[in-house]
Amino acid sequence: MGQNSWQAKDFLVYRDGHNGSTFRAMRSVFTAARIFSLLPMTGVFGDSVTDLHFKWLSFSVFYSIFVILAVGGMTLIAALKLVGETVDFTNLVSVSFYLYNFCAILLFLQIARKWPALAIQWHTIEKCLPQTEHLCSRRSLKTRLQQLVSSVLILAAIEHSLSIVAGIDKSYRCMASNQSYLELYFLESLPHFFEIFPYHPLLGWFGYLINFYCTFVWNFMDLFIISIGISLTTKFKQVNVKIEQARGRIMSDVFWNNMRNYYQQVSWLVREVDKVISGLIFLSYLNNLYFVCVQLLHSLNPMENYIQAIYFWYSLIFLIARTFGVSLYSSKIHDQSKQPVHVIRSIPTTGLSKEVERFLEDVTNGTVALTGKQFFRLTRKLILKITGTIVTYELVLVQVSPRGHVTTSESTNPGNPNLCT
Amino acid sequence: MGQNSWQAKDFLVYRDGHNGSTFRAMRSVFTAARIFSLLPMTGVFGDSVTDLHFKWLSFSVFYSIFVILAVGGMTLIAALKLVGETVDFTNLVSVSFYLYNFCAILLFLQIARKWPALAIQWHTIEKCLPQTEHLCSRRSLKTRLQQLVSSVLILAAIEHSLSIVAGIDKSYRCMASNQSYLELYFLESLPHFFEIFPYHPLLGWFGYLINFYCTFVWNFMDLFIISIGISLTTKFKQVNVKIEQARGRIMSDVFWNNMRNYYQQVSWLVREVDKVISGLIFLSYLNNLYFVCVQLLHSLNPMENYIQAIYFWYSLIFLIARTFGVSLYSSKIHDQSKQPVHVIRSIPTTGLSKEVERFLEDVTNGTVALTGKQFFRLTRKLILKITGTIVTYELVLVQVSPRGHVTTSESTNPGNPNLCT
Amino acid sequence: MGQNSWQAKDFLVYRDGHNGSTFRAMRSVFTAARIFSLLPMTGVFGDSVTDLHFKWLSFSVFYSIFVILAVGGMTLIAALKLVGETVDFTNLVSVSFYLYNFCAILLFLQIARKWPALAIQWHTIEKCLPQTEHLCSRRSLKTRLQQLVSSVLILAAIEHSLSIVAGIDKSYRCMASNQSYLELYFLESLPHFFEIFPYHPLLGWFGYLINFYCTFVWNFMDLFIISIGISLTTKFKQVNVKIEQARGRIMSDVFWNNMRNYYQQVSWLVREVDKVISGLIFLSYLNNLYFVCVQLLHSLNPMENYIQAIYFWYSLIFLIARTFGVSLYSSKIHDQSKQPVHVIRSIPTTGLSKEVERFLEDVTNGTVALTGKQFFRLTRKLILKITGTIVTYELVLVQVSPRGHVTTSESTNPGNPNLCT
Amino acid sequence: MGQNSWQAKDFLVYRDGHNGSTFRAMRSVFTAARIFSLLPMTGVFGDSVTDLHFKWLSFSVFYSIFVILAVGGMTLIAALKLVGETVDFTNLVSVSFYLYNFCAILLFLQIARKWPALAIQWHTIEKCLPQTEHLCSRRSLKTRLQQLVSSVLILAAIEHSLSIVAGIDKSYRCMASNQSYLELYFLESLPHFFEIFPYHPLLGWFGYLINFYCTFVWNFMDLFIISIGISLTTKFKQVNVKIEQARGRIMSDVFWNNMRNYYQQVSWLVREVDKVISGLIFLSYLNNLYFVCVQLLHSLNPMENYIQAIYFWYSLIFLIARTFGVSLYSSKIHDQSKQPVHVIRSIPTTGLSKEVERFLEDVTNGTVALTGKQFFRLTRKLILKITGTIVTYELVLVQVSPRGHVTTSESTNPGNPNLCT
Repeated sequence: MGQNSWQAKDFLVYRDGHNGSTFRAMRSVFTAARIFSLLPMTGVFGDSVTDLHFKWLSFSVFYSIFVILAVGGMTLIAALKLVGETVDFTNLVSVSFYLYNFCAILLFLQIARKWPALAIQWHTIEKCLPQTEHLCSRRSLKTRLQQLVSSVLILAAIEHSLSIVAGIDKSYRCMASNQSYLELYFLESLPHFFEIFPYHPLLGWFGYLINFYCTFVWNFMDLFIISIGISLTTKFKQVNVKIEQARGRIMSDVFWNNMRNYYQQVSWLVREVDKVISGLIFLSYLNNLYFVCVQLLHSLNPMENYIQAIYFWYSLIFLIARTFGVSLYSSKIHDQSKQPVHVIRSIPTTGLSKEVERFLEDVTNGTVALTGKQFFRLTRKLILKITGTIVTYELVLVQVSPRGHVTTSESTNPGNPNLCT
Repeated sequence: MGQNSWQAKDFLVYRDGHNGSTFRAMRSVFTAARIFSLLPMTGVFGDSVTDLHFKWLSFSVFYSIFVILAVGGMTLIAALKLVGETVDFTNLVSVSFYLYNFCAILLFLQIARKWPALAIQWHTIEKCLPQTEHLCSRRSLKTRLQQLVSSVLILAAIEHSLSIVAGIDKSYRCMASNQSYLELYFLESLPHFFEIFPYHPLLGWFGYLINFYCTFVWNFMDLFIISIGISLTTKFKQVNVKIEQARGRIMSDVFWNNMRNYYQQVSWLVREVDKVISGLIFLSYLNNLYFVCVQLLHSLNPMENYIQAIYFWYSLIFLIARTFGVSLYSSKIHDQSKQPVHVIRSIPTTGLSKEVERFLEDVTNGTVALTGKQFFRLTRKLILKITGTIVTYELVLVQVSPRGHVTTSESTNPGNPNLCT
Repeated sequence: MGQNSWQAKDFLVYRDGHNGSTFRAMRSVFTAARIFSLLPMTGVFGDSVTDLHFKWLSFSVFYSIFVILAVGGMTLIAALKLVGETVDFTNLVSVSFYLYNFCAILLFLQIARKWPALAIQWHTIEKCLPQTEHLCSRRSLKTRLQQLVSSVLILAAIEHSLSIVAGIDKSYRCMASNQSYLELYFLESLPHFFEIFPYHPLLGWFGYLINFYCTFVWNFMDLFIISIGISLTTKFKQVNVKIEQARGRIMSDVFWNNMRNYYQQVSWLVREVDKVISGLIFLSYLNNLYFVCVQLLHSLNPMENYIQAIYFWYSLIFLIARTFGVSLYSSKIHDQSKQPVHVIRSIPTTGLSKEVERFLEDVTNGTVALTGKQFFRLTRKLILKITGTIVTYELVLVQVSPRGHVTTSESTNPGNPNLCT
Repeated sequence: MGQNSWQAKDFLVYRDGHNGSTFRAMRSVFTAARIFSLLPMTGVFGDSVTDLHFKWLSFSVFYSIFVILAVGGMTLIAALKLVGETVDFTNLVSVSFYLYNFCAILLFLQIARKWPALAIQWHTIEKCLPQTEHLCSRRSLKTRLQQLVSSVLILAAIEHSLSIVAGIDKSYRCMASNQSYLELYFLESLPHFFEIFPYHPLLGWFGYLINFYCTFVWNFMDLFIISIGISLTTKFKQVNVKIEQARGRIMSDVFWNNMRNYYQQVSWLVREVDKVISGLIFLSYLNNLYFVCVQLLHSLNPMENYIQAIYFWYSLIFLIARTFGVSLYSSKIHDQSKQPVHVIRSIPTTGLSKEVERFLEDVTNGTVALTGKQFFRLTRKLILKITGTIVTYELVLVQVSPRGHVTTSESTNPGNPNLCT
């Protein structure tokens, strides 16, 4: 079924660097990861998926482990600051941020170890699928992933720049005569760090770099899940385009057997991918929901000035958009996996064989979806549930909090000289 | 299957303006929409569904765009008032009201573009369905929709009148010597507007007109969804009346094949309609739930006098009734789509063929329902869930709010001279 | 299948007043209803189910209408007291109590109109079912219902007595020199009534009687639903005992066809009964949940003395027990309807015919349960959901309410002379 | 199917004390239970499952009843302390603790009565299952259970030691000149006890012993459920390993019939076990959720010193871990019961017989899981639901509670001399 013709095209496809394989298409994602020490594999830029390897003794793994240690250190330092304080929802923010990133880099290391084997399985299945990808979307998978990566990174860069601007703005208002802008910014953005170490510009740059890495990891986690979601959805779409041919018609058993095999292989692929990345998905949801809640809590505070307001609202909207992005693109796998039902229901009863009935049974009763450590499935229903929970929580908060005096440890009134201590 | 006889009746039916087609029956709905610039299509009053067209260069589209711009302007003006204030649940009311209506008119414009094609599909399916509509309800679809439109509009008009009376009552109590009633009413009902523009009667009338339009759009959104719900339910009922003939009897495969085709076509129609209006449904639910919550919050405040109390309770009950109306009438589609199960279960086992089994499988496993952007399905269960959430929220509010001092920005104590500032 | 032998026994069964038919078994329930003006039908004590009739022109209907008017009047009087007050959760208690009872008596009148037809259907189905009732329970249905009715009524009587004792105790502490015990009690228990009418002993007795009726109706609502639940469960059990014979064995198609017919008839009966009483179930749940919430709120207040404490806790526990009783006994219908699955799964594959497969499909996919106006189904899952909601609500309340100062209008500190005003 | 060969191995297996049967494997669990008076059966250490008996007239039952009476007495004493106080969430802690344990020991007595019959059924089924246990896990069931028992008991012992240290620490700070450490500790840890009885060292030791027993029972409840969960999961795994052989292959009807029988027998076993222990599961969840909520509430209080902090956080984390342990290990039964689906979907359509289809239907539609009194099923979904509820509750609490002044009756400020009263 088109397999031979595909192998014929295979060579050309690889020559052109065209979107023949997901392995190639995801190169932009892996490039971004590589720069920031994530997914340390060799052979990402090789011609063949079999070049992909994970080696403990390689520069990228050393790089990754170095970053893990650095972030781990920051987590400890931030945790030390907490000892003796009343633990509450917002003074945990720094620790949580570093801890999440620490876990994320570890998880990415683990994913890197399992990815080469997974990539070969993926490629093997992919080669057998009907070549209908060009019918699934106006843009190729490669282009879509490139656009995704660049847009997310640019938006993240804007957020990071705004955070610097907001930080400098805060520092400026508290500037003492004998301090430089840089020193103020570092002191302001790394309070837990310079409580333990004496101030030194190099330490400041080091701390800043760790923060910069963490911000990237935080964004890349969602970016990675979205790109996996898009890639797997494309695979299902390829099968569905082919199945669509059978709408209202009587097809041979061989056709349906092929379709069922395609469908099962993609379903199996989703399960395999899920085994590898479900931990990351779980962490991403935990992370995003926690920060959405924290930010919404802050949203009740009046802003100090326009710079702070712009930074705050941009970062909140970007965060919510990313959370929705992850949910929407991942849930599309599940949506696509249910599509064949309508085609099968449309075929005449005389065209119904055991093969078709079995296919229908598979599609109806099976659930194909990425999961968060098997605790929740990423479907459209989940989005509503999460939104509902957040909204309820926010509504209760709004009513419970006395006006103009929100119970967060960070609410400070502008003009107060204590702001700068 | 009765298709020929239907075409024979077709001419007569159209002559009498009888309830032969949903296209005709919904004329009252489209008339109401037309007056208020919504659903700007040409050929609504034509004899045939093929007359229906959407043209960018037509008076009704210009009318619609003009209203969109005006409401968009109002949204901006109301939003400007918010800048610098602490954002909370109730000072967002004005902005939300205009923003919802702005989105609604845009969505109606989009629906108008897709409606002509949908109407032809609808009509084509409808012509093939068994002509049993007279058995589905004592009144024809046309009459029911007319009654629905007139009753909703009358109730909305009463609410609007009460709002004017309540507004004048409020103004009266604050009247300074040199102001006219009209001026006071306009200033009272358009505070955000006259903060930016100096007072002028013409501007007042313009603002009032926009408010009047918005009130209508707000009501029409629900009215439209209810009428679509009723129409689609009728289609399922027509099929179910026919299927009911088979209760406990053995029917030919041809009969069941026809029934399954009917059922599938109506299901398909529901999916197509859903693609067009699910955005509107989503907006309507968002809108209604938001305002129900806001109003329930206000319900804890003691009323200033009887006029305010009557207006408040009338508008709250009308709002809740509309929300329930939308939910109930839309969920009936789903209820009706499950009806054939009982008939199929009643037929003798010897009368069971592959055709019937397949039909049963379709009805059991398929879910036919309108949705809110695929996030939630309009079924009876949804109603309970929503009610439960609102009640829980209200219960928490009641307990959390200190008595006689509800934390809304609009709570004012009567007799306070500050009321009129 | 045993139908002839049943008809043979029929005569004897009726002679002995034995538990041959649910019509007979429920006589104790109808007797209780009759005394308190509910379910006004003639022929309840007749020999045959065909004697049962509803006549508008009969003493029992007049009696019922008289009580409806009286309770309606009380509702109005209690509602009048509310005008001008801030509406909140607890000062609605009186109105809600009368309003619920008013609706309940109306619903019982409506049920009485539909019951004779339903009873005949019930009896017809019952006659055909396998006579295995003696295997379902150690006690006959009749005995179980009699025990249920007597125990609920005795517990209700104890609660009512306690309420009188608690009322007198309250009055006693506030007694002025020139007032009798009776006067004080009436004034205390009917405050809304004697705000409008001047005190007169006869009016007091009248008001007391209405309260007494309402207390009964309140209890009988749950009693009635429980007894329906038990009766329908017994019907399913009769079928299941018969089906159990087939465990692990190969039975003829005739056997399975009979079983499926029995099953379908009982399922159909449940749906018919549900059509008649689902309104009452809805009201009962609304009622019970509302009062459970109100009482739990009060439970945070310290009790004035032991008499009040005993009355309060007895009535709270009785209320919760009744709510659970309704849920548990009604959900057993659903539990029993799923039982055949295990038997069918146990039979050898060679014994599997189309008939059996169809039966399995029916049992697996169908949902047989009483419902609350189709909004919720009475299953075991519902119980957990309701409990969860109540517990969450209570937990939030406990934390939100300041200690010793619960925000209910009835919280009064003992020793305060204002208590008696 | 391997049954003969198993019986051949049977003798050897028993000789070696190897993990041939669950009866043997669970010996460590029963030993632990025996020491603390739970599950009082004779023959636990016998060679054969048929030696297992429950006799009312045996030392272990007397032992058990004595402990029940003692704990019952403590419950009453703790309850008496409550009379006259405002009931709230935290001053119920002592009573709840004793009451839960009282119920638990009673339930264990009841389980002991039913266990011998269950064990024989279990053993009978087990003997027929394919002997693939060595393929299910690197460690044998016996070893795993031994490790589980020892690790839980050690962790519980650490917690208990910490509680003693924390208690002595508290006492030390309040020591009057004329009191011994022991007296202080007893007075501190048994306040309700020594309010009623005068202090005497023997009474102190007696009270301490009861507390010690209760702590054990509390832990053993979860330990027992986890070990049952692991044992039943192993049974399903044995079947699944065998079924896995059929992946992608065509097997005979005899093979599938055997597999289906195995599957059904294990499912039946799960149902039987559930009948016996579902009460205990219900109690365990109630217990754990209650104490998690209470502890989380306390977590908002600042700790008095490091000893208290370490004890508090250790016991909170241990409690949460145990709750998750119960949920995770029990839900694995359900996970394993769904595994065959993937194998059946992978076999070629030509290999599909009625037998296989039936098996698929069983696995797809049936739900095999332990339950909490049929109210909730222990599946992975439940874990998320529970976590969600707790987190929401905690979030609301955090926001509602004023900082540094948590509304629990136990919040005391250090240095306050009133601490020691």
